[in-house]
Amino acid sequence: MVSSWLNRLNWGLATPTGRVAQLIWGTLSRNLVQSSQRRIPEFSSFIARTNTCGELRSSHLGQEVTLCGWIQYRRQNIFLVLRDSHGLVQVLIPQDESAASVKKILCEAPVESVVQVSGTVISRPPGQENAKMPTGDIEIKVKTAQLLNSCKKLPFEIKDFVKKTEALRLQYRYLDLRSFQMQYNLRLRSQMVMKMRDYLCNLHGFVDVETPTLFKRTPGGAKEFVIPSREPGKFYSLPQSPQQFKQLLMVGGLDRYFQVARCYRDEGSRPDRQPEFTQIDIEMSFVDQTGIRSLVEGLLQYSWPSDKGPVEVPFPSLTFAEALASYGTDKPDTRFGMKIVDLSDAFRDTQAGFLQEALGTPQGTVKAMCVSDGAKYLTRKDIEHIRKFAADHFNQEVLPVFPKASRNWNSPVAKLIVEERGSGLMRSMQAQEGDMLLLTAGEHSRACSLLGKLRLECADLLEAKGALLRDPARFSFLWVLDFPLFLPKEGHPGELESAHHPFTAPHPSDVHLLSTEPEKVRSQHYDLVLNGSEVGGGSIRIHDAQLQRHVLDTVLKEDVTLLSHLLQALDYGAPPHGGIALGLDRLICLVTGAPSIRDVIAFPKSFRGHDLMSNAPDFIPPEELKPYHIQVAWPTDPEAEKSSSGDPRHPES
Amino acid sequence: MVSSWLNRLNWGLATPTGRVAQLIWGTLSRNLVQSSQRRIPEFSSFIARTNTCGELRSSHLGQEVTLCGWIQYRRQNIFLVLRDSHGLVQVLIPQDESAASVKKILCEAPVESVVQVSGTVISRPPGQENAKMPTGDIEIKVKTAQLLNSCKKLPFEIKDFVKKTEALRLQYRYLDLRSFQMQYNLRLRSQMVMKMRDYLCNLHGFVDVETPTLFKRTPGGAKEFVIPSREPGKFYSLPQSPQQFKQLLMVGGLDRYFQVARCYRDEGSRPDRQPEFTQIDIEMSFVDQTGIRSLVEGLLQYSWPSDKGPVEVPFPSLTFAEALASYGTDKPDTRFGMKIVDLSDAFRDTQAGFLQEALGTPQGTVKAMCVSDGAKYLTRKDIEHIRKFAADHFNQEVLPVFPKASRNWNSPVAKLIVEERGSGLMRSMQAQEGDMLLLTAGEHSRACSLLGKLRLECADLLEAKGALLRDPARFSFLWVLDFPLFLPKEGHPGELESAHHPFTAPHPSDVHLLSTEPEKVRSQHYDLVLNGSEVGGGSIRIHDAQLQRHVLDTVLKEDVTLLSHLLQALDYGAPPHGGIALGLDRLICLVTGAPSIRDVIAFPKSFRGHDLMSNAPDFIPPEELKPYHIQVAWPTDPEAEKSSSGDPRHPES
Repeated sequence: MVSSWLNRLNWGLATPTGRVAQLIWGTLSRNLVQSSQRRIPEFSSFIARTNTCGELRSSHLGQEVTLCGWIQYRRQNIFLVLRDSHGLVQVLIPQDESAASVKKILCEAPVESVVQVSGTVISRPPGQENAKMPTGDIEIKVKTAQLLNSCKKLPFEIKDFVKKTEALRLQYRYLDLRSFQMQYNLRLRSQMVMKMRDYLCNLHGFVDVETPTLFKRTPGGAKEFVIPSREPGKFYSLPQSPQQFKQLLMVGGLDRYFQVARCYRDEGSRPDRQPEFTQIDIEMSFVDQTGIRSLVEGLLQYSWPSDKGPVEVPFPSLTFAEALASYGTDKPDTRFGMKIVDLSDAFRDTQAGFLQEALGTPQGTVKAMCVSDGAKYLTRKDIEHIRKFAADHFNQEVLPVFPKASRNWNSPVAKLIVEERGSGLMRSMQAQEGDMLLLTAGEHSRACSLLGKLRLECADLLEAKGALLRDPARFSFLWVLDFPLFLPKEGHPGELESAHHPFTAPHPSDVHLLSTEPEKVRSQHYDLVLNGSEVGGGSIRIHDAQLQRHVLDTVLKEDVTLLSHLLQALDYGAPPHGGIALGLDRLICLVTGAPSIRDVIAFPKSFRGHDLMSNAPDFIPPEELKPYHIQVAWPTDPEAEKSSSGDPRHPES
Repeated sequence: MVSSWLNRLNWGLATPTGRVAQLIWGTLSRNLVQSSQRRIPEFSSFIARTNTCGELRSSHLGQEVTLCGWIQYRRQNIFLVLRDSHGLVQVLIPQDESAASVKKILCEAPVESVVQVSGTVISRPPGQENAKMPTGDIEIKVKTAQLLNSCKKLPFEIKDFVKKTEALRLQYRYLDLRSFQMQYNLRLRSQMVMKMRDYLCNLHGFVDVETPTLFKRTPGGAKEFVIPSREPGKFYSLPQSPQQFKQLLMVGGLDRYFQVARCYRDEGSRPDRQPEFTQIDIEMSFVDQTGIRSLVEGLLQYSWPSDKGPVEVPFPSLTFAEALASYGTDKPDTRFGMKIVDLSDAFRDTQAGFLQEALGTPQGTVKAMCVSDGAKYLTRKDIEHIRKFAADHFNQEVLPVFPKASRNWNSPVAKLIVEERGSGLMRSMQAQEGDMLLLTAGEHSRACSLLGKLRLECADLLEAKGALLRDPARFSFLWVLDFPLFLPKEGHPGELESAHHPFTAPHPSDVHLLSTEPEKVRSQHYDLVLNGSEVGGGSIRIHDAQLQRHVLDTVLKEDVTLLSHLLQALDYGAPPHGGIALGLDRLICLVTGAPSIRDVIAFPKSFRGHDLMSNAPDFIPPEELKPYHIQVAWPTDPEAEKSSSGDPRHPES
């Protein structure tokens, strides 16, 4: 996993060699300095070194330097490679009798021990330069050395190409953090957030306000962690977002708020979710959707690492309805085509039975998608997989059609369709020789969803065979707009729930439908999508107390007493306002190309919510629960007990 | 309270008049722009206004502007003062027939309604300029107006000079936030933190790393909130600081870490403490005490608001022993003198009985403090108060002595002392006519502590009479060094506990005492004190696993299994490291001169830990606790129930 991930990160670099680590450490410091576009920080101020291991060049020749670092490796007791967070440098172990004590220290310290060395920067002998190592022209002639701390035998080597399970990496996170990719990810994250702050605070006058995390439950806040207080029966709650507080700040006249906010969501075990996560939380008064969109576009453009290519603005947008119709999802990956096309009209008088049948039902449609080079890349087995996927997940049929019949896989129905519509189909699908069409028929949104999923399945299949559809170096942003305000409540037909949250303002054109046909009301919610992942979402909020009461009370049937403070605040001169929250972990994950959000978080939890390093959560003696007036209700059902026990150090991921 | 606080903030301004609000809003924007020392942010980008209410000047004359704001007040349906976060501006309500609809909107909207107005910037008629209002030369000739939201009758007026209880302010926090002082405090906080980030991240290469807040209990973590997980009996814990994580980051090679970290401490009801608070958390590898001190001095100098005067570095320092001997406390307020002087030698052969007696006991001392102008300001009643304080809090006697006997209050003993030592006493105490000496005798640290408390009591008394000892515009930083590493465990004589935390490194000169006389070992802990408040503390940490085990196991008798991950980490090449944490709430409180940390936090808890606005913590139905396998253990003791119940909205502070 690690090596493929390195390949991805260093896209375009020469094939990794044994020297890959040196190469990469060099890239790290160069890229980070480039991307910061600022004065270069003093990395050695206040401490016991004069320079970092990664910064020495020919221009430093003759300088006396003191370096601190970890012993990366040692060769024949003559050379030693020293590593710190900034790179690698070669150290010459002195061989003369007078330096015996220095030699002893440097030759006896185990790998990954911490040493301090002082000496002179000298040229490497001609022919021994290493062009792939940023410090490859020089080495350090050591005069004095000190062992700062010795290292015991490690559970794994600190080398990026040494594979280790994620469970082992999480258990020894402090060692895993020494790896190139974790150093790179965390430093890039820090720098990108710093630039976001600069943009918001210094360029646009936003105020960074810290909001509480000891709060109370919101209506329907079943996913909120609870915290017992010292008052019997009373609990705080960890908020899923600062939503209420940021709206209250607008009422309070802090008209431009932002916060890099810690949020909490207890979803039990979910892969690639974290019980605590971070969002860039923004709210503004007197703003409309266009304003928020421009702000966020500017924010991302300004903070984007320069080595990841410029970000072009404005970002394209689609309405929710368009996204569903063309991509079968509200978070389309727009790095590649293969859009869904409606062929209902074209097939209005077809002879193909199942199409006829579908078109005869209400909202019945015929949809197709052109899989570029599908006929070229996909095997019969792949196509079987696709059909099975459609049957298993959607209980629906999908028909592969090879328009030019270059292969004899076309079923009788497909043949009939090609004979009937042949060239017209090719034209309307913009299909070429070697492509494959996937045809389905059924209710509009269901057919779109199916083809949307198959679009990604096909992309996976094609990429596994070497096609490049989703360039990891490309960043395709997309706004999705005009979501429905309400959705039918799952399991309660006839009732509605908020599509996002109850504070979202209705679309101005649809306000009149609120009392009559609320299910038809569009909202002023917007999502920001990057390469098929939702990286942000927000809305213009309701600032009218009466409208907010109507939505909570009449439409959603919520208990408004839990929100009385917010409703009251809207009564006292609340300005129109709106905002957005960007999911920072997911965003940094996409920017760095990391395989999981756990790779852009210093100390993540496993997918079961455990800290495998410290063994959290953990048992607490009953007497320590007493001040909180709670006791453990041990489950009596042995099944429940079984499923939730187990050794948390057991590899989970 | 509010008005005295305004006076303090605007120290040196003219006496507040009816126009105080205008005056202050002007100061706000000027100061904040000055103190930012950067390009001025665009406060009106992306939104429906062209300008802020506070920025318009004669240079804008003739410009067409659109403003959004709250109606501050209205005069005779002719003028209206509009307020936003940046200031106040006068708006001319049009009187001509053609603008009847505009007039209607502006005259009928209640105070604190939100309006948008468009119009032209014009000169005020000659003689009607308001020099005290930054926008006082101009007004807005309105063409169009829109009511954005109406305001119901307010629970209190949004005027700084209108007094309100703190409970009311907290209940309607969103209205209180509109006040000048809250806007100022929160904006200053945001800007100061931004400059700290700039210094750490951009100037000195620190990496901002977010550490988890769902963690596990640390040994002796009785003040840590617990969070039930979905696994029966297992709990997360909210950490009191990222201490373990920042040390693990050092082991992980992230050699310069900082975080503006949310921390949690459950101390029940404590005035001026918050269950969640923020610290500027810093850790560095390869650093010593001097390095950390220089870093922090530079940090505060760089981020200090320019209108609060420059910060001079380096800060003076005292050892813990010196601070105790001279000020009777480890956090001396060094803005004023009145130091404690040891007079043991001078009184070695005194006739005064109680001094003789004290000097005869082990560690017996005679101490005195010179209260400048004490004889001039203090009444007999004040002196009674001082003696009673000494008796009540320390069960100790304190003797007021008036060296020049200008008053006849000297007791027979005091008279004897003046006769015996008169001029020598004056010299060694640097006392002058009109001063008062406070003399006490007893064990060194006890006598110092008593005089240290009396020093502050006397300062309160003198300031109440008009003396200025502690200039609120002066900022006296002080390092306190060489704390003891261990203290006797309260209630367990013979046992030791960490003076700060068990990861603090011993002073290099005292390491040899660790096994023999641990109570004599000084630590490498340092505190930063500002005007008598502790605003930061940190230490060089133990990086040697064996030494850490010895401290935890042998000296402190702690259960090391809870810290096995940290001990293991130290074995794997942990670099020498150290750090510090600055208490941000307290620091901002001192900078702004706010009377309480609650005034520099957007949504603080009351001293009983309640959010009076939203009514948190709150009851939760038992079924919502089920997923966490806990149930409430209702107290059976009616007393306990009584003390912890009660209406949380009841004024508390």
